[in-house]
Amino acid sequence: MIETPYLLFLGDAPDMLAAKVAIGIRDWRPEFALGQFRLPGCGADLNLTDMTLAEAKAAGAKTLVIGVANRGGYISSQWKEVLIKALEMGFDIASGLHNLLRDEGDLVAAAQTFGGTLHDVRVPTDGYPIANGVKRTGKRCLAVGTDCSVGKMYTAMAMEAEMHKRGLKATFRATGQTGILITGHGVPLDAVIADFMAGSVEYLTPDNDADHWDLIEGQGSLFHISYSGVTMALIHGGQPDVLILAHEPTRDHMRGLPGFALPTLERLRDTALPLAQVANPACQVVGISVNTQHMDEARARDYLAEVEARMGVKATDPYRFGAGKLVEALAAI
Amino acid sequence: MIETPYLLFLGDAPDMLAAKVAIGIRDWRPEFALGQFRLPGCGADLNLTDMTLAEAKAAGAKTLVIGVANRGGYISSQWKEVLIKALEMGFDIASGLHNLLRDEGDLVAAAQTFGGTLHDVRVPTDGYPIANGVKRTGKRCLAVGTDCSVGKMYTAMAMEAEMHKRGLKATFRATGQTGILITGHGVPLDAVIADFMAGSVEYLTPDNDADHWDLIEGQGSLFHISYSGVTMALIHGGQPDVLILAHEPTRDHMRGLPGFALPTLERLRDTALPLAQVANPACQVVGISVNTQHMDEARARDYLAEVEARMGVKATDPYRFGAGKLVEALAAI
Repeated sequence: MIETPYLLFLGDAPDMLAAKVAIGIRDWRPEFALGQFRLPGCGADLNLTDMTLAEAKAAGAKTLVIGVANRGGYISSQWKEVLIKALEMGFDIASGLHNLLRDEGDLVAAAQTFGGTLHDVRVPTDGYPIANGVKRTGKRCLAVGTDCSVGKMYTAMAMEAEMHKRGLKATFRATGQTGILITGHGVPLDAVIADFMAGSVEYLTPDNDADHWDLIEGQGSLFHISYSGVTMALIHGGQPDVLILAHEPTRDHMRGLPGFALPTLERLRDTALPLAQVANPACQVVGISVNTQHMDEARARDYLAEVEARMGVKATDPYRFGAGKLVEALAAI
Repeated sequence: MIETPYLLFLGDAPDMLAAKVAIGIRDWRPEFALGQFRLPGCGADLNLTDMTLAEAKAAGAKTLVIGVANRGGYISSQWKEVLIKALEMGFDIASGLHNLLRDEGDLVAAAQTFGGTLHDVRVPTDGYPIANGVKRTGKRCLAVGTDCSVGKMYTAMAMEAEMHKRGLKATFRATGQTGILITGHGVPLDAVIADFMAGSVEYLTPDNDADHWDLIEGQGSLFHISYSGVTMALIHGGQPDVLILAHEPTRDHMRGLPGFALPTLERLRDTALPLAQVANPACQVVGISVNTQHMDEARARDYLAEVEARMGVKATDPYRFGAGKLVEALAAI
């Protein structure tokens, strides 16, 4: 559990793309995003208040979150100065960088001296059980993709926001580093030991109110040979009541795998649903989330209409057209 | 790579069941099993020559293998004495116990002093890559089960032995601790970090002669919700040319999961084959391995005949009736 609210450290991010994590926090947890901290030459600006460490501290910030991915994922000496100063002032630090905070002796020493916590969200912190498959109370929704990086996290985030707006009970459950930094907790599933993957997802989505929905962040794809095992563990550990199919229609091969074609939405449905029904026989596919960023609006709307007609369930691009259709599909369960 | 041949340490094993690992080595790699070492009260006897450490050393033994699983998987003080003595005499030690050799300070110290190696086969030793899905030369066979512990390792071992007898090129590829101890190398897949599972299987089964078969040790089951992610990674990382379906027909629920029924062989085939074809479009199901240990011979033969007729591929119990049928099915590929 990372303490909130945050001061978002943008460092010397060359551009907005490098500030993806910080943007996610600003967009999905604006109440956590107290301000931004930028170094000279920073090319990213989130339109948040620029704060010094002292100003952020005075405003109540608890954690300095490294909201930027730099080339190589390492911690520069320029950054280090700020991080040590932050620890001295009583901040915790949270990071999803490959270069772990805990591997930097001076950060570890400063954290010990000043009582701060270093959160490396790439590293599992809890001991997870072996999955037992026991049916849990409450409802669970999982997005499964035709490929990696087709918008599964975004879909779950957008659905959570829409459900909260409608007064419905819902919790986004983070399974990747960006999601964990945004929400302050979760399971870094790709870093979990194989035997405990499904168990870690059970742990992440415990018994809950009968009308509560866990919106589980999807990972990988059953059709992406590098990461399909992680997806499988989510499907079985999550025991979802509903699946949302996620797709990016303009991609010409699987991400990072030239020569591997994307499956059709039908094939994804016919593969994922029977596997999900092993863990939850009542599971259904209730909607489709399409990432239409590479289509103009007319083409996007045509595509969504065609998919709805073909697949017999609601389809939308939650970023472009809102998550309402998907939320309404859940309400029918 | 564990150095061979071995002296098999049976310790104070209460019975033969506790000596499962040692029995596997004796049965599948008799040339590695130089002798057995037993403590007073040992209830297991593998009909190997009882040897002192000195006798085994003189006979050329390189590694003392802990071939016994004791209650709790820990290293008793009585065992410790023998292990330290073995290190002093220049043995390496290999173990699949939960209680890691490397966590015992006195063993680590002795290994350092005397230049021995401690092999904890539960712990991955290599840095594995992310799977890239590139087609490899040579052929690969994978057994997938309706459940865990239905005889997948045994099937691959029996096929390897039969293929060697026929002068065919084949290598058993261990993915679990017992298989690794038996053969001296492999990948402890259930202990690999999620992101690297499929990559570790690619690493384990590299390019090979066009007429060489890797017989990959299966793990878990696509229908066992605790471990299905591991199975999925084997199917995609192994890019098998053929699948063997493995089944134990008398089991009334999935191992360790009361309330979860076993799938039929048809459902296993129809689930596993399309997933395998994502990595290798030419993959086929060529045979069925049935564990008939709980059936009398007439019933076993009836069952196998019925399965062959129903499924349209050869079926056998490789332990009871030999692996010939399965090997012949490979030859047709």
